[in-house]
Amino acid sequence: MGKILIFGHKNPDTDSICSSIVMQYLQETINEESEAVRLGKINKETEYALNYFNVEKPRMIESIEEGQEVILVDHNEFAQSVNGIEKAKILKVFDHHRIDDFKTEQPLFYYSEPVGCTGTILYKIHKMNNLEVNPTMAGLMLSAIISDTLLFKSPTCTEIDKIIAKELAKIANVDINTYGLELLKAGTDLDDLSEKELINLDAKEFEKNGIKYEIAQINTVSIEDVLKRQEELEQEINDEISKKGLDLFVFAITDILNSNSEIISLGNKAKIVEKAFGKELKDNRAFLEGVVSRKKQLLPEIDKTID
Amino acid sequence: MGKILIFGHKNPDTDSICSSIVMQYLQETINEESEAVRLGKINKETEYALNYFNVEKPRMIESIEEGQEVILVDHNEFAQSVNGIEKAKILKVFDHHRIDDFKTEQPLFYYSEPVGCTGTILYKIHKMNNLEVNPTMAGLMLSAIISDTLLFKSPTCTEIDKIIAKELAKIANVDINTYGLELLKAGTDLDDLSEKELINLDAKEFEKNGIKYEIAQINTVSIEDVLKRQEELEQEINDEISKKGLDLFVFAITDILNSNSEIISLGNKAKIVEKAFGKELKDNRAFLEGVVSRKKQLLPEIDKTID
Repeated sequence: MGKILIFGHKNPDTDSICSSIVMQYLQETINEESEAVRLGKINKETEYALNYFNVEKPRMIESIEEGQEVILVDHNEFAQSVNGIEKAKILKVFDHHRIDDFKTEQPLFYYSEPVGCTGTILYKIHKMNNLEVNPTMAGLMLSAIISDTLLFKSPTCTEIDKIIAKELAKIANVDINTYGLELLKAGTDLDDLSEKELINLDAKEFEKNGIKYEIAQINTVSIEDVLKRQEELEQEINDEISKKGLDLFVFAITDILNSNSEIISLGNKAKIVEKAFGKELKDNRAFLEGVVSRKKQLLPEIDKTID
Repeated sequence: MGKILIFGHKNPDTDSICSSIVMQYLQETINEESEAVRLGKINKETEYALNYFNVEKPRMIESIEEGQEVILVDHNEFAQSVNGIEKAKILKVFDHHRIDDFKTEQPLFYYSEPVGCTGTILYKIHKMNNLEVNPTMAGLMLSAIISDTLLFKSPTCTEIDKIIAKELAKIANVDINTYGLELLKAGTDLDDLSEKELINLDAKEFEKNGIKYEIAQINTVSIEDVLKRQEELEQEINDEISKKGLDLFVFAITDILNSNSEIISLGNKAKIVEKAFGKELKDNRAFLEGVVSRKKQLLPEIDKTID
């Protein structure tokens, strides 16, 4: 069957990319031939991290063959995974999300914790196996934690993430705050991205009670700047809605400095967000104070409202 | 919300009961108030283990309230879990089975490995957390491993199960083979069980492509003895089939000394087993040489045939 393939979710973020690479490193320690790959374009934030720690981009794949042995990091829902995942042999999963639409024929290694980042879990796997942490890998795990927790400001961030990030920063020899702000800022450089790329940069699909919806998110230091492109963004979102047959598309523009989000909500179920967040949509938009996390804030409220 | 409830699957076996008790012990070490409970009658094998190590039976429950916080051991499929599980808050899962029909609204702690027994995993959790293993808990984890692996003879048994069982036997101060055979033999004392009890002793329900089926298993030292009751067993199985609307009921009578099984297959899809195991049913029965494991041998072949 060849090498085991390791990958994170579609529209990969820094955690998906960095955790795949760290997982490949961990697999080498047990002599299981594996390759980290990716399911989409590397974003600017991730690119900054890979350049900083001088690590190559993983190879991109579009789909996998039946029976391919795989390890999933940073996701489990098949809708977010590679094309062909239903017929793959999933050996291991390392994740920190809810479990949904996931099934296997055989028992497997599944390791998940309700922490802020897969990087945090992979650090714990090092400890469990008495492995010393390589400084480059430490840098990648740290980058993943900073990215997923928005430098510890997201409600998904736990005390464990903070403790482990400090430890990793020491090993990687960087100052958390300086490096962290540079990393996040690199990700907010959206100027040369098309509207189509913006809405796909970090988008995840969900389905509940027959309602298909997608929540996309981008980070910025100026919501206003992004809103200058609202008309073009809405056009692309509406295209996406008809192409995929979605009922709802929520596009969250997250201000990483002040920890708020402006959302654009479109689709025949666009009004769900009004009930979910107690805010009226004006010009298809609403400002959500203190909301920065899809997993802990956007998704559960929308899910509850659909129920 | 009160205490966190910990339980294994319906028709609990020794692993489900013992792992619940060990998990309660582990929860005490992190000061999370929890109670091991059970979803059914204690079988004779488990009773032998609890008596031997002088441990009380967990309280029995029938269902749980909406929002109840729970920890699942030794299972994840909702069809095998407590009534009301869909509306519970699942905090943690410790398991060694395939994942299917499992979902949560929130991220959770999920720890699964493809080993022979949940007891093996709980021993590893002790090690990970630098916890000394209490001799009584060692006895319970050992009993679970012996039971699930049929004293290391099942194809589900891994090298890790064997190594950990040896370690646990030392701590519990028992001879593995002597204690193991006594434990397994205690479980084969089926005389005072009704046919209804026999087919429910260790039964699990599954569903694939709309086909509902159940695989029940009992251990014995004499298949012949059990077959004396075939007519009455078939009556009860057919009752179960109409009551639950099953398409198939496979009842495996496993000879723990010689590691073979005789199966009785009933229901409108009874013939599936002929294709699955390449054996013709005679008098609704087939002899399956070397087959002792539902998880590794019966279930995957039946599933493949349904596909």
